[in-house]
Amino acid sequence: MDIEWILFQLFILVLFARLGAILFEKVGMPAVIGEILVGIIIGNTILFGYLRLETDFEVFQVLAELGVIFLLFTVGLETRFSDLKMVGRTATMVAVLGVIVPFAAGYLIIDLATHQPVEALFMGAAMVATSVGITARVIRDMNLTNTIESKVIIGAAVIDDILGMIVLAIVVGVAAGGTLNLLDVAIVAGLAVVFVLAVIFIGTRFLPRARKWAPHRFTPWKERKKKKHLISPLALALIVCFGLSALASFVGLAAIIGAFLAGMTFAELEDIAPCKEGFESISEFLVPFFFLFVGISVDVSSFGEVAFLALIITVAAIATKFFACGLGAIKLGGKSAVIVGVGMVPRGEVGIIVASIGLSYGAITNSMFSIVVAMSLITTLVAPPLLSYTFRRRLGRALTQ
Amino acid sequence: MDIEWILFQLFILVLFARLGAILFEKVGMPAVIGEILVGIIIGNTILFGYLRLETDFEVFQVLAELGVIFLLFTVGLETRFSDLKMVGRTATMVAVLGVIVPFAAGYLIIDLATHQPVEALFMGAAMVATSVGITARVIRDMNLTNTIESKVIIGAAVIDDILGMIVLAIVVGVAAGGTLNLLDVAIVAGLAVVFVLAVIFIGTRFLPRARKWAPHRFTPWKERKKKKHLISPLALALIVCFGLSALASFVGLAAIIGAFLAGMTFAELEDIAPCKEGFESISEFLVPFFFLFVGISVDVSSFGEVAFLALIITVAAIATKFFACGLGAIKLGGKSAVIVGVGMVPRGEVGIIVASIGLSYGAITNSMFSIVVAMSLITTLVAPPLLSYTFRRRLGRALTQ
Repeated sequence: MDIEWILFQLFILVLFARLGAILFEKVGMPAVIGEILVGIIIGNTILFGYLRLETDFEVFQVLAELGVIFLLFTVGLETRFSDLKMVGRTATMVAVLGVIVPFAAGYLIIDLATHQPVEALFMGAAMVATSVGITARVIRDMNLTNTIESKVIIGAAVIDDILGMIVLAIVVGVAAGGTLNLLDVAIVAGLAVVFVLAVIFIGTRFLPRARKWAPHRFTPWKERKKKKHLISPLALALIVCFGLSALASFVGLAAIIGAFLAGMTFAELEDIAPCKEGFESISEFLVPFFFLFVGISVDVSSFGEVAFLALIITVAAIATKFFACGLGAIKLGGKSAVIVGVGMVPRGEVGIIVASIGLSYGAITNSMFSIVVAMSLITTLVAPPLLSYTFRRRLGRALTQ
Repeated sequence: MDIEWILFQLFILVLFARLGAILFEKVGMPAVIGEILVGIIIGNTILFGYLRLETDFEVFQVLAELGVIFLLFTVGLETRFSDLKMVGRTATMVAVLGVIVPFAAGYLIIDLATHQPVEALFMGAAMVATSVGITARVIRDMNLTNTIESKVIIGAAVIDDILGMIVLAIVVGVAAGGTLNLLDVAIVAGLAVVFVLAVIFIGTRFLPRARKWAPHRFTPWKERKKKKHLISPLALALIVCFGLSALASFVGLAAIIGAFLAGMTFAELEDIAPCKEGFESISEFLVPFFFLFVGISVDVSSFGEVAFLALIITVAAIATKFFACGLGAIKLGGKSAVIVGVGMVPRGEVGIIVASIGLSYGAITNSMFSIVVAMSLITTLVAPPLLSYTFRRRLGRALTQ
């Protein structure tokens, strides 16, 4: 390993990501698209070989994963349990419809085209999970985390991720064993639900009560600082964030769900253990690596041969999520339902992760993988400008940026 | 690569490092020793195998390197060019004496013991460079960055690093070619000096003048924020930090010298591009990985066989740096000279890096490597408590922590 070269790679990546972000903001588009496109350019041109990124791929993979974890934590920091409970019903409706309809569409299209049911199952699974990272970033860039639509989208994306993981567990079970092992599926599903409910219970019930019972243990940080030898709020938040992320992984969920729940816990503790500014600084450093990495993972050259099927899948992916989730949120009113529908469209890394698991099991072909990548990419590129347009339409032209 | 497992490793490392730091602060010792000892425990017990750290070693190596880079940047942030110029003469004196005397001592002892001149050269080189990281951290933990002694120590350590790199370049040249290639050595030395002088020129001459000529380009950040689409100070600082670190590496210097100079440049720009709080948050996350890694790199089991030679080398390493550097700073007064002497003692990672280069060239034996590690470790463990004791003695008992 060549640490000097890694520093040079870091310099180039940080510089290019920022240039891409600035350029796209200049033309009124979300910075995140600029970062993804910079990633695509780096991953598909001579730059990738020149930077020798394949040698240190693991390092950037970890930086990208840390980036999405810090992003979800900061999103969680701005989501209070009480708010999520408020939109819980709508969010559940949006999530459930947004899982069933795209899964069915993906399965049917591929089963019709290739007559490979396992491959069709993977495509269905890849079309299920919304990339909360992309939408969360756009919402954060627009300072709209506190709107009702944002809360429904984020809440639905979290439930959606849990459902998506259960679908993935089922599909992987089929691909690995050849048959459906219902017991394994039930265990994964059960653990997932217990994990989320446990964290939510601690956040909404236990912490507020503990605060009443033992107020001396919940001294605001500023008064505490006078005492020596205390752990800083940022350090405590880092420990909890990594702890819950790892725990979520072990339970069979995506790590980002743990990070998000950790962030939500610290949202309840903002007055006694403030860690928001610290986490935002770390995020500013690490988050762009995630979006660069999404772009770098895209292989443009393999798109040609499967363009038509990719087009059908992409249109189906957009249409099914948009209408199913919009329908789920219809009681918020038409304009809001449109925002929620658009906000649930991006698949981003989640679809790609599902497809790469399928590839590693030999359950899907390389061209099917390219289709998933194209679908994930286009849904990801299409959603941010539409999201900012629909938000602006509802909140009035006054909202700039 | 198993991203779930890496998250679990991160959780354990962040948690243990913090526990070690809190424990050592409780007994009045610098937190950094706690972190290093936690690293030694992890690296030399069943924990290392249990955590499977060897599989993801590259990742933690990069996190450690990022940690020391961010540490040196934040130290640079608190060092102004004008201050370094003020202590430049004393610092140069301290550095030059602190390079010549330990190098000679290391060379003579090993040449006498093993009659291997190349091995002796490497030991000399390993005894040269002060680990500015360790001392800087202790000084920062004690809030003493602004004292004259701190400035002399940091300044001398920087010059010392440059001299150390030149010595290393010479030694590596001998080990690689068998003979001393004076042209290569001259090129490395020349580039190093040009690099540092260029950055210092830009920092002390160009930036202040540019400010007078074009004041509209140096609007304070807060007024600028109203305009859209501007790069944030933190992002700019990250780009400059990685850029100068990579550049320093390419020139043949340690990357941390580039990070330190980048920090110094932003110290001059604090009013127009404040990045201190952001960098401190990122440091709080990443710096402990560096000190954990120093500890993990230590192999306790190999110490037994070479204990006696290790003891002699360690005593020589402490005594030569202490007296040579103390002598260089004698005009600051006795108590201050003692502080400077103590502050220059820790070798930390620098000695270990030099030794590992020697090992990779087959120029030194494994037992000689163990000796360097023991020397680096003991000088590192001995300096912080002595430093805080001598500082307290000079500044009076009033100074707590």
